Amino acid sequence: MRFADFHAGQVLVAGPTRVDESSIIAFARENDPQWFHTDAAAAARGPFRGLIASGWQTCAIAMRLAVDHFLRGSESFGSPGVAYVRWPHPVRPGDMLQFRGDVLEVRRSSSKPTLGILRWQWRLTNADDVEVLDLEVTSLFDLAESSRS
Amino acid sequence: MRFADFHAGQVLVAGPTRVDESSIIAFARENDPQWFHTDAAAAARGPFRGLIASGWQTCAIAMRLAVDHFLRGSESFGSPGVAYVRWPHPVRPGDMLQFRGDVLEVRRSSSKPTLGILRWQWRLTNADDVEVLDLEVTSLFDLAESSRS
Repeated sequence: MRFADFHAGQVLVAGPTRVDESSIIAFARENDPQWFHTDAAAAARGPFRGLIASGWQTCAIAMRLAVDHFLRGSESFGSPGVAYVRWPHPVRPGDMLQFRGDVLEVRRSSSKPTLGILRWQWRLTNADDVEVLDLEVTSLFDLAESSRS
Repeated sequence: MRFADFHAGQVLVAGPTRVDESSIIAFARENDPQWFHTDAAAAARGPFRGLIASGWQTCAIAMRLAVDHFLRGSESFGSPGVAYVRWPHPVRPGDMLQFRGDVLEVRRSSSKPTLGILRWQWRLTNADDVEVLDLEVTSLFDLAESSRS
């Protein structure tokens, strides 16, 4: 998509994408090596009765879906931050995660009209339609760029 | 550390840790494959005049430092979410990132006294003391657990 293709009220869906046990363990060993993310046997005796994904991996999964389906080929060049992140329910091995993006606001910067600003809410739900991620992120677009794709 | 070792007002420091170009590209290929994270040549001509790390990787670097220095061996078992994330400045290949954690609140749940709740602010700064990450996260501790470490 291009910046001009986004509009407030739009609902963008992508996925589902499968989360494998091996990817949960690999991400956690690198980034979040807590036993309930890396050690299936210990996690089975823990509060979640099984391995769960790092919350940061859940964010990364949503990012990957957003890039693959909506940002790739756009004028996107980064983000200043995220208004909030909620991890209301654990992500487990084998989960199929569906992405929903709700476009909240699309505008050009008043001080710099070549700067496009997109504010959108990302949610991931599992196959039982239980929400596992909810966040609101701002994406920036360089509308002065020469066309890339 | 254990939950009992945290107290409001505490400042926890860790690092620095080095961010290599290869780790920026590897993380981005998996999780955030936008050209300014994955393609050094294109990024050199882009708005940042060089490759920058995915913001989610910056969060993951802070998480890794928090786990290695403060959460490993604690009763930590997860997080319900993050109040906000700010990425005020790009992270570049070769950056040395320093972690600072400010403990904002430490309490037990009033409805479930075996649930420990830690609210802390994490910041990463580069070697020029420029802030590249600022977030506030809540960590949960299972104070009924049998001792793990």
